Amino acid sequence: MKTIRGTEFKEELLQRSDSSQLDLEFDRNVLSIIEIVRLEGDRAVLDFTERFDGVKLDNLMVSEEEIQEAEQAVSEEFYHALRSAKQRITSYHEAQKEQSWFLNPNESIVLGQKVTPIDSVGIYVPGGKAAYPSTVLMNALPAKIAGVGLISMVTPPQRDGTINPHVLVAAKEAGVDRIYKVGGAQAIAALAYGTETIDKVVKITGPGNAYVARAKKWVFGDVAIDMIAGPSEICVVADDNTNPIYAAADLLSQAEHDERAAAVCVTTSEVFASKLVAEIERQLAQLDRQEIATQSIEQFGRIILVDTLQEAFELVNRLAPEHLQLMIDNPMEHLASIRNAGAIFLGEHSPEALGDYMAGPNHTLPTSGTAAFSSPLGVYDFMKKSSVIYYSESALAEVADDIIILAESEQLTGHANSIKVRKAGY
Amino acid sequence: MKTIRGTEFKEELLQRSDSSQLDLEFDRNVLSIIEIVRLEGDRAVLDFTERFDGVKLDNLMVSEEEIQEAEQAVSEEFYHALRSAKQRITSYHEAQKEQSWFLNPNESIVLGQKVTPIDSVGIYVPGGKAAYPSTVLMNALPAKIAGVGLISMVTPPQRDGTINPHVLVAAKEAGVDRIYKVGGAQAIAALAYGTETIDKVVKITGPGNAYVARAKKWVFGDVAIDMIAGPSEICVVADDNTNPIYAAADLLSQAEHDERAAAVCVTTSEVFASKLVAEIERQLAQLDRQEIATQSIEQFGRIILVDTLQEAFELVNRLAPEHLQLMIDNPMEHLASIRNAGAIFLGEHSPEALGDYMAGPNHTLPTSGTAAFSSPLGVYDFMKKSSVIYYSESALAEVADDIIILAESEQLTGHANSIKVRKAGY
Repeated sequence: MKTIRGTEFKEELLQRSDSSQLDLEFDRNVLSIIEIVRLEGDRAVLDFTERFDGVKLDNLMVSEEEIQEAEQAVSEEFYHALRSAKQRITSYHEAQKEQSWFLNPNESIVLGQKVTPIDSVGIYVPGGKAAYPSTVLMNALPAKIAGVGLISMVTPPQRDGTINPHVLVAAKEAGVDRIYKVGGAQAIAALAYGTETIDKVVKITGPGNAYVARAKKWVFGDVAIDMIAGPSEICVVADDNTNPIYAAADLLSQAEHDERAAAVCVTTSEVFASKLVAEIERQLAQLDRQEIATQSIEQFGRIILVDTLQEAFELVNRLAPEHLQLMIDNPMEHLASIRNAGAIFLGEHSPEALGDYMAGPNHTLPTSGTAAFSSPLGVYDFMKKSSVIYYSESALAEVADDIIILAESEQLTGHANSIKVRKAGY
Repeated sequence: MKTIRGTEFKEELLQRSDSSQLDLEFDRNVLSIIEIVRLEGDRAVLDFTERFDGVKLDNLMVSEEEIQEAEQAVSEEFYHALRSAKQRITSYHEAQKEQSWFLNPNESIVLGQKVTPIDSVGIYVPGGKAAYPSTVLMNALPAKIAGVGLISMVTPPQRDGTINPHVLVAAKEAGVDRIYKVGGAQAIAALAYGTETIDKVVKITGPGNAYVARAKKWVFGDVAIDMIAGPSEICVVADDNTNPIYAAADLLSQAEHDERAAAVCVTTSEVFASKLVAEIERQLAQLDRQEIATQSIEQFGRIILVDTLQEAFELVNRLAPEHLQLMIDNPMEHLASIRNAGAIFLGEHSPEALGDYMAGPNHTLPTSGTAAFSSPLGVYDFMKKSSVIYYSESALAEVADDIIILAESEQLTGHANSIKVRKAGY
C-alpha cells in the first residue's frame, strides 16, 4: 500500500472520473435492449435471459413452491442471523419515517407538507455466482416501512434456472410481494415500462453491473431511481493508538469487493502507517478474494500522512467517503468536523462489516464522493411530499396586489388575471 | 377545450412521452459544449455567450455596482411584494428543516442520522427576454435556510450585457453570494466542473431550456441536480358549485407558460363543463400570451367528465399533476384520497398563482407525472444525511457470529475476517 502526503492526495482527488461522457456503442446497446423489451414484453425478456444468463425459462415469476424449497435449504444459523439483522434494520429505519405536518400562520391560512408512500418499487438484486441477502433486506425493509403498496424484486437466475435460496428467504422475510427471474438492462426496462408478467413500478432501487447502472441512467425520469453506484470506498482515520490489525482487516474488507474499490487510511502517525503496511501484506496473503483485493490495494489503496487531525478531517470532507471509520480517541467529539461521509463508524469496534449487515442503518451509501450531496438509502427514498395550500378569501385579498405585481414583473399576465378575477368579487 | 370521459383519459395517459431515447445530434452538441468548457474554462464560456446570447462580455461576474443600479431601477411596490413573498417562503421552509437525531437502543450502542448542508449550490435562472425573480427566491431561500455555504447563481445576459434588475434585486434579497452572466449548457458545465472565475458547485438547481435540461442530465452524478422539469400541468377538480370564471382563469394561468403545458379539469358536472368551455374561450381572447395559451389548450387542454369524486381522485392519482386544485366543497376532507400531486390547492381562493409567488411552499414542483415519486424542491434538497454507528466491544461481541454467517453467505470472507480479528481479542 502506497504511503503519500496529504497534499499529494489532494492532487489525486482532482483526477476523479466523470459522468458526462457518451459511450456510444455501449449506450446504443443498452438502449436497444430497453427498446426491444418495451416492444416485445415478456418474449424479449425471456430471450435476453437465455442469451445473457444461459437459461431458457418458462416462467419469470418465482413460485410459492420455490420459496418453500429455499426455506428448507438454508441453515438455522442463517435464519437467526437474518432475523437479527431484520430486527435491527427495522428499528433504525422506523425512526426515519417522516410524518405529514400542517401550519396555521393565522386563522385564514393552512399550509402543509403531506407525506405519502410511493405506489410501487422494483428492487434489483445482483445474482449469478454471488448472492446478496443483505441487499434484499436493505432495500425492501425501508420500502415496507414507508408503506409502499407493491414491492417487486428482480434478480438474474443461475444457469439451472434457480435463485439462490438465501436471497429468496431474505425476500420472503422482508415482505417482498413478487420475485422475478430477470437481470441486466432487460430487468430495468421491464420494471420501468412493464411487460405482460412484470408490472411497471414508479421507482427502481438496488445495485447492479455496468448494464444495470447505464439502463437506470436512461430510464431515469420515466421512473425514479435510487442512485448510480460507483466503486465503493472506505476511509479510516487513525492515530498512534489505533490497532493496525483491525484497521488492516477493515480496509481489506472494502478492497475485496471490487478491483476498483478504494481503501484509504489517513493518519497522523508514521509509526502506525508502517505497522499498517506490514499488516495489510500479512492479511492480504490469507484472503479468499486475494486477487481482487490486491489489485484494489495496489491501484487505489493509500496511506495518507497528515500533521493534525484537523488536516485529516479536511481531506475526509474533500474525499466524501462512502464509509468513514474514526478509529481515534473520543471519536464522538470529532463528529462535528465531518461534513461529507455516507456512514460514520465510531471507535475500534464499529467496523464497516457491522454496518453492512447488522448495525441498523442502511448499507446502500453514496459512493465516489457523492456523499457530498447524497444520503444513504432510507425510508425517505420510498415516500414523497406534496405541498398543501389553503387560503381563505380574506387571506388571498391581503396578498392579491403583491401577487399581481410579481406576476406582471415576469410578464405572466394570465397569472395576474387569475388573481384579478377574484379581486373583482371582493 | 376538448371534453372527454374518464376512460378515454386513462388511454391518453398511457401515451406519455419517455426519457430513454438517445437524441444523437443533440446529445453530441450538448456534450461538446460541456467538454469545451471543461478544457478551456472562462474563454469557452465567454465565446459561447457571444455566440448564443449575442453579447461580448469582459467579465462574467455581476459587480456590486450593477446590483446597486438594479436596486434603484425597481419600484417600491416590487420591493414590497418581493419582501412579502420572501417572508412567507422563509417561514414555510424553516418548518422543513430537518435535525440530526440519535438513538440509544441500549447503553453500548449509539446510532444516528447526522444532517448537514451541502457545501455549495449553483442556481440556474432563465433569462433573455423573460425574467423570473420568483425562481430566484424559490431556489435560493431553501438553500440559505439549509445553511449552504456558497450560493452561486447563473443567468444568461440580455443583448446589452445586463441582467434584468428584478432578478438582481431578488438575488440580493435572497442572499445569493455570486451572480454570473452565463446561460445554456455552458453555464451548467461551468457550475459542474468550474472555470477560472466560476467555482465548481456540488449541486445545480433551477429550470432552463432544452439545452440546460439535457446538460443537467449529463453532468448528473458528477454533481447533484434537482430534477429535469418537463412541461408543467394543472388539474382542477370541480363540481356543480365551482366558479367557472375562477377555474378558467387558473387553467389559463398554466396554459400561458408553454405550448406544451397541460391544463386539465376533472368534473362530475356536465353543466359546469359547458360553462367552463365558454369561459375559457372568453378569457383566452383577452390574454397577452394568447397564442401560447391557445396552442396549449387545443393540444393538451381537457375537460374530463366522471361520475363520482372517487373516480376523479383515481384519475388525479394516475395523472400525478404538478398542481392540483380541489375547487370542491370541503376540500380538506378529501385530502386523504390524494396520493400523487406536487402541490394541492384547497378551495376557490387558493389559485395556482398564489402558490407560484406568495403562499410559502415552493413553486418548483415535480412535472409530467413525476409527482408519483418526487417531491417539491425543499430545504431537504440542500442537505444530506450521514449514518452514525457506534458499537462498544461488548455490543459487537453479541452480534459477531451473526455478521460472520451473513458475510460468509455472500462469500465476502474479508468482511467476516474483520469481525474474526476482533473476536480473537474477546
